[in-house]
Amino acid sequence: MNQDEPVYDIAHLAHLELLTPKPEESLRFFVDVMGMTESGRKGDSVYLRGWDDYEHHSLQLTASAKSGLGHLAFRATSPQALQRRVAALEKSGRGLGWSEDNVGHGPAFRFTDPDGHKMEVYYETEWYRAPDHLRPALKNQASRFQDKGIGVRRIDHIALLASDVQANREFMQATLGCRVTEQIIFDDGSEKGAWLAFMNKSYDVTYAEDSLGAQGRLHHLTYAVDNREAILRAADICLEHNVFIETGPHKHAIQQTFFLYVYEPGGNRVEIANAGARLILAPDWKTIIWSEAERKKGQAWGLKTIESFHTYGTPPVG
Amino acid sequence: MNQDEPVYDIAHLAHLELLTPKPEESLRFFVDVMGMTESGRKGDSVYLRGWDDYEHHSLQLTASAKSGLGHLAFRATSPQALQRRVAALEKSGRGLGWSEDNVGHGPAFRFTDPDGHKMEVYYETEWYRAPDHLRPALKNQASRFQDKGIGVRRIDHIALLASDVQANREFMQATLGCRVTEQIIFDDGSEKGAWLAFMNKSYDVTYAEDSLGAQGRLHHLTYAVDNREAILRAADICLEHNVFIETGPHKHAIQQTFFLYVYEPGGNRVEIANAGARLILAPDWKTIIWSEAERKKGQAWGLKTIESFHTYGTPPVG
Amino acid sequence: MNQDEPVYDIAHLAHLELLTPKPEESLRFFVDVMGMTESGRKGDSVYLRGWDDYEHHSLQLTASAKSGLGHLAFRATSPQALQRRVAALEKSGRGLGWSEDNVGHGPAFRFTDPDGHKMEVYYETEWYRAPDHLRPALKNQASRFQDKGIGVRRIDHIALLASDVQANREFMQATLGCRVTEQIIFDDGSEKGAWLAFMNKSYDVTYAEDSLGAQGRLHHLTYAVDNREAILRAADICLEHNVFIETGPHKHAIQQTFFLYVYEPGGNRVEIANAGARLILAPDWKTIIWSEAERKKGQAWGLKTIESFHTYGTPPVG
Amino acid sequence: MNQDEPVYDIAHLAHLELLTPKPEESLRFFVDVMGMTESGRKGDSVYLRGWDDYEHHSLQLTASAKSGLGHLAFRATSPQALQRRVAALEKSGRGLGWSEDNVGHGPAFRFTDPDGHKMEVYYETEWYRAPDHLRPALKNQASRFQDKGIGVRRIDHIALLASDVQANREFMQATLGCRVTEQIIFDDGSEKGAWLAFMNKSYDVTYAEDSLGAQGRLHHLTYAVDNREAILRAADICLEHNVFIETGPHKHAIQQTFFLYVYEPGGNRVEIANAGARLILAPDWKTIIWSEAERKKGQAWGLKTIESFHTYGTPPVG
Repeated sequence: MNQDEPVYDIAHLAHLELLTPKPEESLRFFVDVMGMTESGRKGDSVYLRGWDDYEHHSLQLTASAKSGLGHLAFRATSPQALQRRVAALEKSGRGLGWSEDNVGHGPAFRFTDPDGHKMEVYYETEWYRAPDHLRPALKNQASRFQDKGIGVRRIDHIALLASDVQANREFMQATLGCRVTEQIIFDDGSEKGAWLAFMNKSYDVTYAEDSLGAQGRLHHLTYAVDNREAILRAADICLEHNVFIETGPHKHAIQQTFFLYVYEPGGNRVEIANAGARLILAPDWKTIIWSEAERKKGQAWGLKTIESFHTYGTPPVG
Repeated sequence: MNQDEPVYDIAHLAHLELLTPKPEESLRFFVDVMGMTESGRKGDSVYLRGWDDYEHHSLQLTASAKSGLGHLAFRATSPQALQRRVAALEKSGRGLGWSEDNVGHGPAFRFTDPDGHKMEVYYETEWYRAPDHLRPALKNQASRFQDKGIGVRRIDHIALLASDVQANREFMQATLGCRVTEQIIFDDGSEKGAWLAFMNKSYDVTYAEDSLGAQGRLHHLTYAVDNREAILRAADICLEHNVFIETGPHKHAIQQTFFLYVYEPGGNRVEIANAGARLILAPDWKTIIWSEAERKKGQAWGLKTIESFHTYGTPPVG
Repeated sequence: MNQDEPVYDIAHLAHLELLTPKPEESLRFFVDVMGMTESGRKGDSVYLRGWDDYEHHSLQLTASAKSGLGHLAFRATSPQALQRRVAALEKSGRGLGWSEDNVGHGPAFRFTDPDGHKMEVYYETEWYRAPDHLRPALKNQASRFQDKGIGVRRIDHIALLASDVQANREFMQATLGCRVTEQIIFDDGSEKGAWLAFMNKSYDVTYAEDSLGAQGRLHHLTYAVDNREAILRAADICLEHNVFIETGPHKHAIQQTFFLYVYEPGGNRVEIANAGARLILAPDWKTIIWSEAERKKGQAWGLKTIESFHTYGTPPVG
Repeated sequence: MNQDEPVYDIAHLAHLELLTPKPEESLRFFVDVMGMTESGRKGDSVYLRGWDDYEHHSLQLTASAKSGLGHLAFRATSPQALQRRVAALEKSGRGLGWSEDNVGHGPAFRFTDPDGHKMEVYYETEWYRAPDHLRPALKNQASRFQDKGIGVRRIDHIALLASDVQANREFMQATLGCRVTEQIIFDDGSEKGAWLAFMNKSYDVTYAEDSLGAQGRLHHLTYAVDNREAILRAADICLEHNVFIETGPHKHAIQQTFFLYVYEPGGNRVEIANAGARLILAPDWKTIIWSEAERKKGQAWGLKTIESFHTYGTPPVG
């Protein structure tokens, strides 16, 4: 593989496992507030999806003593692409081997990033087949448009906290072949945040420095809706459902995402965002670097970044 | 290259040359109504772009005796990808060789599709550098958000008419490596339409049967805005500017695009669409096939497809 | 009272009784699709309201052999205003006397317009008191924001068919004191449509000529949502619920209402509209008169008016 | 006039005179950013209007040593209504007599509220007649839809600071006949804010306590756009034009207005709001009273009220 050539071996963030100490309340949140549908249960897990997620599930909600991330999964673009990524992961020394018996998808190669977040990559998957009552009127969407709750369309991205952003970002580039679309680099040269993309979405995974120095923590997971008005409506819905709104709706300067951050009952931060309007079409996109001074300016329209955004992650520490 | 492996050698539709017998009026339309900005002139051509088009231009408007398409251009994802595509094009026997002296981009390999539409593919490009008065407040966008006219964000796709849809679709698959996301196939097996995609956008190029049996004609070109409300606003603006609205705003059943079709003063059909909300993330997306009966149902919410949509293209024939 | 002085004795269209031969399916439509909530039952009627309707109900759905309008009701602005309107109605000879035992409101004076539509006017009303599960987070709205179905905010207006538009319009002006904000007058001087307003809303009641020459029929009833995007979402919801969409979403030239017309299962036409953006603030608003030629132009953005819009009403005739 | 009967003698806030120490820059803001059009000049004043303001102007921008409010004007619903209001004003002892020679409207009766804000009320007015290039495509709007800048539709309301909210609120009720739709009353019984409405808009004038104890100051003036997306777009436009955004976009708990507050170059606070979706249709609306604890909760979705919102007004003091 030539240095100059971009790698397109990872198609997208496929799903993630979220740990919750309040499984029933978390389930109610994802179903009643987020408007997701259940597509299966196994052991301590309930599997969920947005109305246009094409796979069996995009969220595995697992009862657990603590909140946080169980694991996350990427789907490769082909069997060959999967083999190439596995080879790179094995070479990195962070590979954990294959897991064969998976709900909703085929063999997955497991690994951890340097910060210890559990990840997997697979190709074979089970396309979601909607039961009669969820069959869509238009056959080019995965299931019926959801008119209850926020009605998120699909999983969008995941934001991870890491003690060493640079190390994790470099690992992801070397093993998965992502591009760095935006970055925060402070005056002393330390890397405070990195936004990583696989295809046209402006990011699929992000890393931010864990200010508490912990490891393996989750900052937030994000589901996409179609436009900004849908996010304002989401805020109205969260207000009525007594869901804690941490910040937003507002527009990030970085990536220009229009965001709403809330905490689900298990304590994990969930973002509702419109992530489709702005695409990265340039194959040679030049990383946008934000300085310490620029980050201090706050969000796009001047909202000061809320303090907890820099400190809160799951599981909580201390 | 294995059959199963998707090709990601074409990054996106880069620009197109539009021919107009009314160059001054067409220019006023693209600047005043569409809200595009001029980035250069040469010979009979004016070069234009939407506020978030990252290259020198996405539209070359050329004075001509007749309306229609001059040529269209794709950008490859890397120099190596370009070489692979050129090899495939040369093998197809439809290659026309390299053009070296181009405005806004490097060497381009020229070719025609079986229907005779002129195309080119290149890699090297000139990133747009905004002059002071167009410099954006946020450095992760190509130029200042345009608050005059519709303010289209970027080029989205092009729709071509062809006497033989199947032949052209197969040519594009074989030479450029696109995927067929949706298709119209009539009861007699004839292919009436094909939607072709390179990356996550649900389509970049489409072919529809030219019901008048002509060759090399243009059905429409499309610019993207961020949401459906922006398209309703676009309709209000077209109404005030006395621009002919052919149909819409409404939602296509096929691809679910929310559309507005108008004719620019030179006679070419222009679409304003929101093409970002729905992405094709599955690398193995199964082509959606619409039957004759399904197409007769009209658009998503029941609007009958307007007759001229099946007959009008540029240049006009007969 | 001086001729020049506008009358502000009627506050708003308060509710209407809709007749349906399919009461169960109609109820499911208003609850599941429109997102209204039930506030009572009595006899063959179910009482319903939008989430920000402040009275006990805005819709009385009554099982009946035929579809159409049972009656409609206006709320007066004060007890004195009610007395003035009753005096005018009695003077008109169309008064039918008081009904005392009403669900959700006090004594109502009943009357018919010249076309035979049953109407009533009252002042005393029962403010809706939300049960716990419908209590709003913000105390300045009538009940919880509805996140299921379309989630209409409130009743907006009613459109009546009449064999003689002028006679009915003049009756409403003389007895209720409304203003005529827009009108259709054909070249032969015949009045084909009239839009009548009581306060700042651009219309509360409309009359259109019944092209079938019938009497007492309903053209449509309308519920308001907050913006155009909510109406596009409503169209998506109707599509999924297999609700017949007659026309729209599109923008009327007359009154500029952004509309969606559907038929509820009982056969009555229902409009979802955004009726708040444009207000009539001028107390001396000059009636806008549309000619025959202007009406032929169709809707604001060029959509031809669908034929059934000129012929279909409830109950059906012939 | 009976106590129980609501007064409908004032139609709406008609215009206001804004003082600016930077007249050229303020004019550029209202034309280029707000998208208003100039309808006249006289002396040190430029007259401006939104595209659907039906009168000659809704804003008189006047060069002045200090920022703040020159005067504001209400339009009466009829000549008789005007006489009634003048009688009440004269009785209050705060009448200043008639001014005859006015730009854009007839004789106006001048008065001050107890806090010293200069006001006037009139009936006769000059309807705006659009020149050719501003003539609308649809004849039921005042002038062409504005596609440059934010494109505000019309004036909405004005927010005044007062040393004694209760005294001013009572004066307005007694003389103009407004209704109090919402109020802030602290635990000690002191009235901190009052929202006053004349017709269906939920408020036309508001009073808030001037925390600096000054008199006659302006908190902000507000122009209306049609929906929330238009306000998000306004924020993007302000960002590009380097306009200072004080707070928002966000949703007020009080009145539920979706707001964006900016400072125009002369220092005056300007709000862009969507004020039409929620109407007060009940003629006997019960004043919503917000307590000290409730106000501390901040805005609807949890945004803390920015400190300057409680202290900044024009002209600045101290």
